[in-house]
Amino acid sequence: MLRPKSIAIIGASPDANKLNGRPFYFLRRDGYAGKLYPVNPKYTEIDGIPCYPNVTSLPEAPELAVIIVSQKLVSAVIEELGKIGTPVCIIFSSGYSEIGPEGVMLEQELLKTAEHHGIRICGPNNLGLINAFENITATFSQYADKPPIAGPVGFASQSGAFGTGISALARSRGIGLGYFVNTGNQADITLVDALIEIADDPKITVLSAYIEGIRNGTELIRLAHKAMEVSKPLIITKVGRKAAGARAAASHTGSLAGEDRVFDGVLRQYGVIRARNEEHMLDLVAAFTCCHIPTGKGVALITQSGGAGVLMADRCEELGLEVTEPTAKTRKKLQTIIPSFGSTQNPIDVTGQFVAEPKILIDSIKIALDDPGIDSCIVWLQLMHAYSGLLVNIFKKSNKKLAKPLIICWLGAPVKALQELREAGIYVIGATERSVDVVAGLVQYGQSRARHVKLLPPLADPNFGNGRGQASLAPSIKAAELLNKAGIPLAPAAIATDAQSAQRIAEKIGYPVAIKIESPNILHKTDAGGVCLNLTDATSLVNAVTAILKAAKTYNPKAKIDGLLVQKMMKPATELVLGVRRDAAFGPVVMVGLGGIFIEILEDVAFAAVPINSAQAGLMLDSLQGKALLEGARGKAPVNRTALIKLICNLSQFAANHPEIVELDLNPVFADGENLVAVDWLMMVD
Amino acid sequence: MLRPKSIAIIGASPDANKLNGRPFYFLRRDGYAGKLYPVNPKYTEIDGIPCYPNVTSLPEAPELAVIIVSQKLVSAVIEELGKIGTPVCIIFSSGYSEIGPEGVMLEQELLKTAEHHGIRICGPNNLGLINAFENITATFSQYADKPPIAGPVGFASQSGAFGTGISALARSRGIGLGYFVNTGNQADITLVDALIEIADDPKITVLSAYIEGIRNGTELIRLAHKAMEVSKPLIITKVGRKAAGARAAASHTGSLAGEDRVFDGVLRQYGVIRARNEEHMLDLVAAFTCCHIPTGKGVALITQSGGAGVLMADRCEELGLEVTEPTAKTRKKLQTIIPSFGSTQNPIDVTGQFVAEPKILIDSIKIALDDPGIDSCIVWLQLMHAYSGLLVNIFKKSNKKLAKPLIICWLGAPVKALQELREAGIYVIGATERSVDVVAGLVQYGQSRARHVKLLPPLADPNFGNGRGQASLAPSIKAAELLNKAGIPLAPAAIATDAQSAQRIAEKIGYPVAIKIESPNILHKTDAGGVCLNLTDATSLVNAVTAILKAAKTYNPKAKIDGLLVQKMMKPATELVLGVRRDAAFGPVVMVGLGGIFIEILEDVAFAAVPINSAQAGLMLDSLQGKALLEGARGKAPVNRTALIKLICNLSQFAANHPEIVELDLNPVFADGENLVAVDWLMMVD
Repeated sequence: MLRPKSIAIIGASPDANKLNGRPFYFLRRDGYAGKLYPVNPKYTEIDGIPCYPNVTSLPEAPELAVIIVSQKLVSAVIEELGKIGTPVCIIFSSGYSEIGPEGVMLEQELLKTAEHHGIRICGPNNLGLINAFENITATFSQYADKPPIAGPVGFASQSGAFGTGISALARSRGIGLGYFVNTGNQADITLVDALIEIADDPKITVLSAYIEGIRNGTELIRLAHKAMEVSKPLIITKVGRKAAGARAAASHTGSLAGEDRVFDGVLRQYGVIRARNEEHMLDLVAAFTCCHIPTGKGVALITQSGGAGVLMADRCEELGLEVTEPTAKTRKKLQTIIPSFGSTQNPIDVTGQFVAEPKILIDSIKIALDDPGIDSCIVWLQLMHAYSGLLVNIFKKSNKKLAKPLIICWLGAPVKALQELREAGIYVIGATERSVDVVAGLVQYGQSRARHVKLLPPLADPNFGNGRGQASLAPSIKAAELLNKAGIPLAPAAIATDAQSAQRIAEKIGYPVAIKIESPNILHKTDAGGVCLNLTDATSLVNAVTAILKAAKTYNPKAKIDGLLVQKMMKPATELVLGVRRDAAFGPVVMVGLGGIFIEILEDVAFAAVPINSAQAGLMLDSLQGKALLEGARGKAPVNRTALIKLICNLSQFAANHPEIVELDLNPVFADGENLVAVDWLMMVD
Repeated sequence: MLRPKSIAIIGASPDANKLNGRPFYFLRRDGYAGKLYPVNPKYTEIDGIPCYPNVTSLPEAPELAVIIVSQKLVSAVIEELGKIGTPVCIIFSSGYSEIGPEGVMLEQELLKTAEHHGIRICGPNNLGLINAFENITATFSQYADKPPIAGPVGFASQSGAFGTGISALARSRGIGLGYFVNTGNQADITLVDALIEIADDPKITVLSAYIEGIRNGTELIRLAHKAMEVSKPLIITKVGRKAAGARAAASHTGSLAGEDRVFDGVLRQYGVIRARNEEHMLDLVAAFTCCHIPTGKGVALITQSGGAGVLMADRCEELGLEVTEPTAKTRKKLQTIIPSFGSTQNPIDVTGQFVAEPKILIDSIKIALDDPGIDSCIVWLQLMHAYSGLLVNIFKKSNKKLAKPLIICWLGAPVKALQELREAGIYVIGATERSVDVVAGLVQYGQSRARHVKLLPPLADPNFGNGRGQASLAPSIKAAELLNKAGIPLAPAAIATDAQSAQRIAEKIGYPVAIKIESPNILHKTDAGGVCLNLTDATSLVNAVTAILKAAKTYNPKAKIDGLLVQKMMKPATELVLGVRRDAAFGPVVMVGLGGIFIEILEDVAFAAVPINSAQAGLMLDSLQGKALLEGARGKAPVNRTALIKLICNLSQFAANHPEIVELDLNPVFADGENLVAVDWLMMVD
């Protein structure tokens, strides 16, 4: 599909202003070197090229067919293409799943027809693709109104309109898109399929995608892996971050806000950079085409404006970057070249003196980046139209010698300087905070790559989470056995059938105890009056047993009562929440968060697809808003990080081994310094 | 200073490329109509205008003097100017407070000289000002390399470099700056002074400022008031949001992150819009020059791209805007004009059909904005180069009839269309999320204005918080008396001198009680072993008294012990923290936050300058991250909002009446549904 030696355009028109005339016009204009076969019974030739009345009359099977016929004729065309042996087609025609249930059926039929004839489909309801290296402009996108510029970026978009907009913005920034693929309804070929293929092209160094929704998360993970393996950063913008956006997307059901958090967690886990919007995406894409990848979080800020330095330092802190204090040695070196009214601290103020002595700026950049604590450098400027050529030369000279990223943030830069810097492979951006956002993206990728090299996480089994039967509550003790065996520590507990056996258990595990009703029909035990905490002696225990059994009977007379869980009361400690969910896109995912307010009010939890490794589990913890609590805030002992990471990994492995789990909650887990123990657990299986 | 009829340039040069040649060159180039007096003993004329050897030889006292001489000569020049009666001067010369302690002294001397001669100073260390309406280009800023464009925006900047950058970016967006003032070191005239003056110019409709630090917060409040009174939005970017940025600013000491939160709170309180950075500032400034002010949070999103609609809806939710579902009536009307494959829900998809029938888009905008729940409308587009003229006409037609704001978000718009729309006073922006950020700014201002009209908050007394003596701990019972009288409810308590009197008090207020050591020398009672909680009977009370007195003696043998505070134990409830702080810029400020984790880990507190009104107190609560807790999350009763607001107002009034308070903590305040009661309090006074 991406590199066809021949293309048929079914429904071609000689009118370049018409949708069905545009692909043919573009392919001719851009000098496509393969064979072009317009197909349309109305014409015998278009622009001097023979036009065929139908597919059957084609002299050979084209390697790609672009179908621009009315929706009713599409299936017949595909049948004909299948018969002559065309392997793949792009279907521009709309009126399929995007219009609702009726269209979904038509799309399924279309797919069946295609599968029957062994032909792959891109679309329907898309606007085509561009391979700018081989002048394949098989699209009607407005982006192609000007000839595409080939470059190191592979871009795929589910949306045609937004994808076109992003591509046009990329062009205006001088970013060359080697590939632009719009996958539309994705009846067959997905955005992931396209990018995995594109990733192998050595001319491509950066991958990017615009996504509206993901059906198969394990495929996305496969793409993330692929990108890591070929060392090409992958930048994704996905909409539907929030409930309002998700409602607007309307392409999913249920708690989409939750699912977006899973998506976010998986991207972090696999080293994919998530861009907030089209602007952020292009900022990052451009940077990745030319910047070195930093190995740490230290940033040097070189300015002549105190204010800009402060604004950048603010943003660095917000994004977890460090405006590292230079070493004494570095400062000493800087002092020998920077005028005394400048500053050798970070932000470094080189003063305007470099206009007379360019060496000041060139050497400052070099000295700063030679500092072991500094991994990236942003040079901030504004205007300087009179010294534009001088500055371009300074940056060209500087950039050559460096092995760490240099970011030029230049407000109101002359257009010529921008062009020259871009041509020289030097990254330049025109907004102060966004320059820091870019460094954060580079740092995130650098760290992901370092993690990836250390340990390659196994791929999740794509068959996970596909069974969607009726979920039911697993008996507590059965769940406890499985969890204990999997290395997940729980508060000691056993099932009592009556007051006497409850007493025996309590004596064995030691008072105080809690008792909880055990019934497959009672999910919310507290609501049912089925929980009694902090029972300190036999009398209160016996009374509690009677009270609970009575309350349960009132709550649900038909409930099957399996007994009472007698459980040791644990000393209150820092509360964590761990769990397993089955995500619609990613199958089983593990979850970790801080308990109480953090989860209930702030929804401060992190997700990752299973299985995970310990580095990824550490990342989950670092992403929590309340992570200071893990480090021992509020006078409490710090939570044993190693033990917690091990617990998350054990839980992940447990989830991987038990695909029948629909939901597992360990809530709360008490973290008392060294010890971690789940004091309540709930497991749903199908 | 802003509208001089005559200007002397002390140290003028005929070389327009030199710093001291630029103001004269610019003023001539731009056709300044007043009298120009270059002063420099080296020349007899510059560009045909007589040049004077010194100030004394000038034929009249110029209304403004621009001083561009070496730092050593400045004082002498000011003396001469004072003698001839020039009222104000701008001092470009540097080498003052920006270079450190030595420069601070020089600046103070300079100010004394000026005050002695009754002359006002703008600067030193600045790059001048522009009044574009009267062609006063009294600056050497690179922004003036092209003639300034007059327009409805007044902009003042403490930073010359960043201010120049912002001005140049404004020009490139077609935003006309009627005034640009750089105030430099602000020895005398401040940014606030300049903007208060500019606010009165009827040609100015929007005020904006770039700030690096504020010394006198009450002046800033005065500016905010002024802006509200003249109904002109004020947009401020201040750097130093974070500790890292604050350290970089290095112009303050102590906890600057805290002070920035106070700044943030005061801006919210007084209806000033804070822009994150220069880009956000210009987005907002441009919008305020032409958009109607919305009266509510409902936004209609009109697109042809589902994805863009989702991205905007995401951002709306993040910023507290509502993507309002249109009423049945609105949807019915939309259905009559939007093709069936479009969508009449919000986001509204008008489809590409409007290219053939422009009425579809024109009417959709009108119908959407007629909906009572919709207060603003964003129309999202990309490219459409072929229909650029058509679209401009559609928006011109639409905009005429509207009384609610219309925002055009147009990715990759043709330059011509941008120009035409801007000339027609229609707001257009080229980035999806930023279009929503702009609406949020408009909404915030609309709400502030509505609040302001309802109740004008009194100005804080600018003399507050100037006394900075030695702070000492107020005795608990004395503090309690004052607080109770001020309408701040505390847990019942009294001072006991020994075990017997403690018992009597406990019996009177009822068990259980807490006892706490009372000593002016013991600030951290818990650390001193000076607190015993939950004493349920006389025996435990007597034992606790003995233990506490012993512990206190061990902790600090020299501590003066005033007795023991016996206090009724209150039932645990939602924990709040209230307090008063004395801010270096704003004097006394009130503080409210949620207790425990919220304050300790998330630092989730809101500040406001005192005194405040109930609407402002409500705003403080709404700005809390954990506000859901106030509304009764986690199964607790909601906190009585009216009572809490009253408590904050009482506290504010108390702080206003007691400027001797350096710090007051009510921590925690238990909020148990209807009741609010402080269970611990600490007051420091000087």
